[in-house]
Amino acid sequence: MSESSSSNTSSAERLVHVPLGERAYDILIGDGLLARAGGEISSRIKGRKAAIITDEHVGPLYLEALMDSLEVDGIEAVSLTLPAGEKTKSFDHLTKVCDVLLEARIERNDTVIALGGGVIGDLTGFAAGIVRRGVRFVQIPTSLLSQVDSSVGGKTGINARQGKNLVGIFNQPDLVLADTSVLNTLSEREFRAGYAEVAKYGLIDKPEFFEWLERNWRAVFAGGAARTEAIALSCQAKADVVVVDERENGRRALLNLGHTFGHALEAATQYDSSRLVHGEGVAIGMVLAHEFSARLNLASPDDAKRVEKHLKEVGLPTSMSEIPGELPPADVLMQAIAQDKKVKSGQLTFILTHGIGQSFVADDVPSSEVLSFLREKLTQ
Amino acid sequence: MSESSSSNTSSAERLVHVPLGERAYDILIGDGLLARAGGEISSRIKGRKAAIITDEHVGPLYLEALMDSLEVDGIEAVSLTLPAGEKTKSFDHLTKVCDVLLEARIERNDTVIALGGGVIGDLTGFAAGIVRRGVRFVQIPTSLLSQVDSSVGGKTGINARQGKNLVGIFNQPDLVLADTSVLNTLSEREFRAGYAEVAKYGLIDKPEFFEWLERNWRAVFAGGAARTEAIALSCQAKADVVVVDERENGRRALLNLGHTFGHALEAATQYDSSRLVHGEGVAIGMVLAHEFSARLNLASPDDAKRVEKHLKEVGLPTSMSEIPGELPPADVLMQAIAQDKKVKSGQLTFILTHGIGQSFVADDVPSSEVLSFLREKLTQ
Repeated sequence: MSESSSSNTSSAERLVHVPLGERAYDILIGDGLLARAGGEISSRIKGRKAAIITDEHVGPLYLEALMDSLEVDGIEAVSLTLPAGEKTKSFDHLTKVCDVLLEARIERNDTVIALGGGVIGDLTGFAAGIVRRGVRFVQIPTSLLSQVDSSVGGKTGINARQGKNLVGIFNQPDLVLADTSVLNTLSEREFRAGYAEVAKYGLIDKPEFFEWLERNWRAVFAGGAARTEAIALSCQAKADVVVVDERENGRRALLNLGHTFGHALEAATQYDSSRLVHGEGVAIGMVLAHEFSARLNLASPDDAKRVEKHLKEVGLPTSMSEIPGELPPADVLMQAIAQDKKVKSGQLTFILTHGIGQSFVADDVPSSEVLSFLREKLTQ
Repeated sequence: MSESSSSNTSSAERLVHVPLGERAYDILIGDGLLARAGGEISSRIKGRKAAIITDEHVGPLYLEALMDSLEVDGIEAVSLTLPAGEKTKSFDHLTKVCDVLLEARIERNDTVIALGGGVIGDLTGFAAGIVRRGVRFVQIPTSLLSQVDSSVGGKTGINARQGKNLVGIFNQPDLVLADTSVLNTLSEREFRAGYAEVAKYGLIDKPEFFEWLERNWRAVFAGGAARTEAIALSCQAKADVVVVDERENGRRALLNLGHTFGHALEAATQYDSSRLVHGEGVAIGMVLAHEFSARLNLASPDDAKRVEKHLKEVGLPTSMSEIPGELPPADVLMQAIAQDKKVKSGQLTFILTHGIGQSFVADDVPSSEVLSFLREKLTQ
């Protein structure tokens, strides 16, 4: 990570380079990048056409500013505004986006821009990767979750009735512009949900980052330099993992810490965001992963308590009992876990831990152990 | 190309290796490979589940034999039989195939098998590349066209209302089994259409292969060693081009010789196979490409006549006037050409030629020249 020059440390801009050979790209992190999008794109991409995909929440706030910025730099843009929410990651919407890109005659050197959170980024990145077998793709993530998670690593896709993200491709963007000031319009709940993924990077393999967050999380929530720092460190942490295992044959699975339980809980609540959003599922999932590791005598129960304490302090849910409404029984949750894509020849793959910042990939977790653990937790 | 040992030269088996680094794979060409599919797959792929995608023409002929072969080698398979024809390359069928693969719990090390021609191969390869962001993929091409064309190079995809193959990915198979004996059930018309692509490899950059075909085409049509030889040489020719330019940034475009005109004619006949099939469009397109090159004083008119003579002798159509029914006017054909994906920043890219086996990529063909050429040919 290198810092660009800036006289004002509170708005210091960061650049994280993701060195993936011919798929290498930059992530710019800082205040006011949206207004500079046209210049940043036109200096990197030849084509002079763009299509912006956004949603009904983000579009009214930022679409006009982005269109203006593109126009100033001579990029002609069309836009498509989709319904907000997880249900937009569907085959129907994928078909619609592809149709709009083809009608706009977006060619291989033109740009498709995802302006929105993870849903818009995942759907748009998938469409950009399959239209004409791949056109240029720029992410402008507008949620904390998407700035620290989906903007790095190239996973794109849609949901299927069998589960989340079961259809998609790896498609690295050409550029990511993470404008930290757009996060000011997020609700407290959305910001917190994104923060769960920030904390995750500490829990995976950066114990000193987790400690830093325990001390500085209020400043991260307040904005300014601490927020930019936390986002840049998160992007760098994810990039470090992705670079050694782009297509998730091994180490990259660590990024799923808390996600196997989390995805199952999202499925169990029918992706109803009034009950549970992704980051909340991950928060509960990370506590469960630490508790399950303690139960298997792999880690100290104190570590699970420390994770729970921090996430609770931040305002995140940390147990299944905090999810409003009824949850299905343990065996139904197990089915959702088994259909999750991190399954190899019937064996359950789980991210477990030896303690804070000491996560590892376990390929041989007996499903009976998971089932009885879930039974126990559901009755607590 | 290396020959495997065989005591019977008339059924000599060939292996073409496509050296694409970590995406390298083998193409086996010969008699009776279908019955050996289980062994060939199980020796290369770990998973013990498979899903076979086929169509209503091919399924009744070969599905049972394939299922039997898989069963013998301990591979548990499900199958899906789709309608035959170009219309199957749609978002609706893609959605259906993905759903079947997920329901069958095909995991990353399990196998998706395309049993059919180019339509089934393109659709299935696309689905196999996006389900769980990629599972294993084996092609068993059952038409001459798919054995020499779509089985090599990894282009997969579906059609959009704006044109053919406008949505898809590059997805190299793990193995291709080209059983030459299944070609015996093809109609004469289908075999001839596939032969247009065989002749194409000679016309691109192998003049000695084109000469060999002028002398030996009857033996290729009859089957046996000459057929196996022609298929192996075609696969090798395509592999040679793909290896230096997998993602079509340059030289690979040569494989589109005859295809820009051909695709426009297919679009103009609404992909109605009773009027025109792909290989017939390519045959007419190749003659047009040679004539257009002669018109631009790039090649001798004698070369265009020689191409026309050979394709006519084989029984292929060589002019637009042979297509049954009305064709749209030249400007409508031009629109289809402009929407074709081989367009860069508005400039027309065409494959032109300096003569037999001397094709080249031209990036700067004036559309006015193409338009007046088409007007002239349509009134002949």
